[in-house]
Amino acid sequence: MARHAVDVGSYTENITRQLAAYSSGLKFQNLPGEIVLVAKQCVLDGLGVMLAGSREPLAKKVMSFVREEGGSPKSTVVGYGDRTSPSQAALVNGTAAHALDYDDVLRPLHGHPTVTVLPVVLALGEKLGVGGKGMITAFVAGVEIDARVGAMMGDKHYEKGWHATGTVGTLGAAAAAARLMNLNANQTAHCLGIAATQAAGLKCMFGTECKPLHAGKAAMNGVIAAELAARGFTSRTDVLECRQGFADTQTDSFQPHEALEELGDVFHTLDVKFKYHASCFGTHAMLEALATIKKNPAFGLEKLERIEVRVPPFALDVCNIQAPKTGHEAKFSYRHSAALTILGEETSSLESYSDDAARRSDIAEMREKVFVSSAKNLDRYASDVFVYLNNKTVITEHGDMGPPVEDFGTQGEKLEHKFRALARPLIGHCNTNQVIDAVWSFECQSGIGTALSGLKIA
Amino acid sequence: MARHAVDVGSYTENITRQLAAYSSGLKFQNLPGEIVLVAKQCVLDGLGVMLAGSREPLAKKVMSFVREEGGSPKSTVVGYGDRTSPSQAALVNGTAAHALDYDDVLRPLHGHPTVTVLPVVLALGEKLGVGGKGMITAFVAGVEIDARVGAMMGDKHYEKGWHATGTVGTLGAAAAAARLMNLNANQTAHCLGIAATQAAGLKCMFGTECKPLHAGKAAMNGVIAAELAARGFTSRTDVLECRQGFADTQTDSFQPHEALEELGDVFHTLDVKFKYHASCFGTHAMLEALATIKKNPAFGLEKLERIEVRVPPFALDVCNIQAPKTGHEAKFSYRHSAALTILGEETSSLESYSDDAARRSDIAEMREKVFVSSAKNLDRYASDVFVYLNNKTVITEHGDMGPPVEDFGTQGEKLEHKFRALARPLIGHCNTNQVIDAVWSFECQSGIGTALSGLKIA
Repeated sequence: MARHAVDVGSYTENITRQLAAYSSGLKFQNLPGEIVLVAKQCVLDGLGVMLAGSREPLAKKVMSFVREEGGSPKSTVVGYGDRTSPSQAALVNGTAAHALDYDDVLRPLHGHPTVTVLPVVLALGEKLGVGGKGMITAFVAGVEIDARVGAMMGDKHYEKGWHATGTVGTLGAAAAAARLMNLNANQTAHCLGIAATQAAGLKCMFGTECKPLHAGKAAMNGVIAAELAARGFTSRTDVLECRQGFADTQTDSFQPHEALEELGDVFHTLDVKFKYHASCFGTHAMLEALATIKKNPAFGLEKLERIEVRVPPFALDVCNIQAPKTGHEAKFSYRHSAALTILGEETSSLESYSDDAARRSDIAEMREKVFVSSAKNLDRYASDVFVYLNNKTVITEHGDMGPPVEDFGTQGEKLEHKFRALARPLIGHCNTNQVIDAVWSFECQSGIGTALSGLKIA
Repeated sequence: MARHAVDVGSYTENITRQLAAYSSGLKFQNLPGEIVLVAKQCVLDGLGVMLAGSREPLAKKVMSFVREEGGSPKSTVVGYGDRTSPSQAALVNGTAAHALDYDDVLRPLHGHPTVTVLPVVLALGEKLGVGGKGMITAFVAGVEIDARVGAMMGDKHYEKGWHATGTVGTLGAAAAAARLMNLNANQTAHCLGIAATQAAGLKCMFGTECKPLHAGKAAMNGVIAAELAARGFTSRTDVLECRQGFADTQTDSFQPHEALEELGDVFHTLDVKFKYHASCFGTHAMLEALATIKKNPAFGLEKLERIEVRVPPFALDVCNIQAPKTGHEAKFSYRHSAALTILGEETSSLESYSDDAARRSDIAEMREKVFVSSAKNLDRYASDVFVYLNNKTVITEHGDMGPPVEDFGTQGEKLEHKFRALARPLIGHCNTNQVIDAVWSFECQSGIGTALSGLKIA
């Protein structure tokens, strides 16, 4: 029965208990400053995509259901101003945050960290009146558990058909909830068990409204797990590694040591990647390269003949729709994104990926100049771009979203720009500034109230 | 990639849509009388175990959480009298119904049908004011989908580590909810998709409080699926059979034709098996055989020397605890159950499987006379019992819970007896009769109100 690299039946180290001890023991004063900074960047970015996502029809349907169910008004639903029960607020906010697929990503998770963790931190943080430091700490706990459980599951979990944002994300959400509620290590281990046995999300749902729902459900289930664990509800305390447990049922590439490697020394939160363009993350390296090319003095729109884009082979199956007909398809089209950049359109804007934009004739004409092919030597998040001009000049740039960010200050500026673009049309200039200020000074805040009060759409 | 008997990639018939069309099209007037009868028996039995289970500590913890969350008072929580939102009522009632592991079973499901379906029917039926006929029809829809999806998943789903009551049960719950809400075939197909991508439950949780929680979560998720589908929330409409769908991710024994075989002609509801003893279903055949032996005029307690029990081999791993120390262990002990029967104790009583009973010296002494071994020729739900007397006489009986029930009238009498044993100590004689009368005449009732009002514990 040794279908795993490490047979779960013979693996004796208790991963669940070690991760629970780690996450329940995290303290704000022990977090490196860069981690606090990136966590706040995740929060600002998460609030922006959540606010914008709350306007999507799918989020409105979930909100309509939640309103009908009712609930004690303890936690705010972003974009609506309603307060409802924590589990329901987490459901709506998580779904809204992933609705645009414009939220951050984390490679070891094989998915999106903030959309399941932030809604839990908001909902329970507000209910319990936890201050900024406590909320940041809980957020980091959630993202770190996401990363370590995701790495432990290996590539096969995602490849087999599991949407890791939904499945693994439930464990991150639960860890954040447990930390926020001050559960001890033993309670947190039970909490992870209660979470793992609720974890779900099928990759076949990509392209349907269920994909964002996975994030909302993961957040909701994380709240349920912690609330039950706090009441002494029992589970196993070895669910990640036990026979017929989470890894045993849902991956063929169980990598137990990945879960524990350099535990306490390395923070994966630093590796969160943000999206600055409202399109598939796969298109981002090309967009960065094209933006640099446009700044080259040799470039001129009137001289443009053709654009060649080389991408890693897997990406041809993901985001290479040749002639997108809808806004959603446009998000998954190298040609559309390249055309936008060349034409000077704002790729960070949702409007650039609307149904109307997909049909615009100038964009369609420009798409005809873009040729995409694959190159095996390219890393997962990299692209090579060659711009051919009619004066026998070629300008080339290599874009790569993979390497760790070195300048977190610039990252913060870009995220603030993105947040303004998303938020200002919905909540206005003053509220936008209020939220930004509140998040950048989050560790000095007594809670999330100031930020949330600015996120109400009139 | 053909890891299935039928490769999901090449299976083109749309099982999900066919099952959705079937369940959304079920009508009370087309249900055979025996189906209506058995459905009512499921309802009575389900209400009894739900009521008794509501007193268990694990159910109280879930109730405590639900009370803190709050919700519109639309649906009754059995045993508490609280009314809360439908999804939350379904969560508590489903968890309570499975808390004692004393609820009905269905072989093709590899699990417990009523504990995920009935809570949905109660919660939404009460909220929507649906009459008895509509509720019975929705209940049957849920159980039939349970059976067909369970059969489609084959043995490997359960064997791999999935608790089918939680996973497949979510689809049954969703089908019942969809029928109750009068969703059409297309909406029901989306509803099944939304349900499948939430379905969860790990078998490693057996023996923890999470096992009953799986039933509650399945019921809750079924409500969520139908409420969202009713609002036009989109999913796939081929989730059961598609690539990276429910079967593809969660079984290696996909049997698509089992889902559709004799659809519309055969009702699996008729095959629901009820538990009349508060112990593991595996012990029931032995108990039935022993009861018959005790009625044999040749039998006498003073003559008893030893009892030999032969069981199917798999059962030795399930319910053959030699010297149980707790009430929970006693439920999984052939020797304890046999001792109870010989001593004239009521095996339908929860008290007979309490911690105190496990420690009673007379029962422990009698256990020493019971010897359990396996016999390969025995069917899954069968046992052979040999009672040796000191006058060189052996009385033997074969018990088998497998064959279809022929006398549904007797089944109803036994279930009424069981219901009285569970309910009378909690709600008294008059309320017990009120509930029984209401359920037996359910198709004449305008709703479930009369039954529910009797199920309140003072």
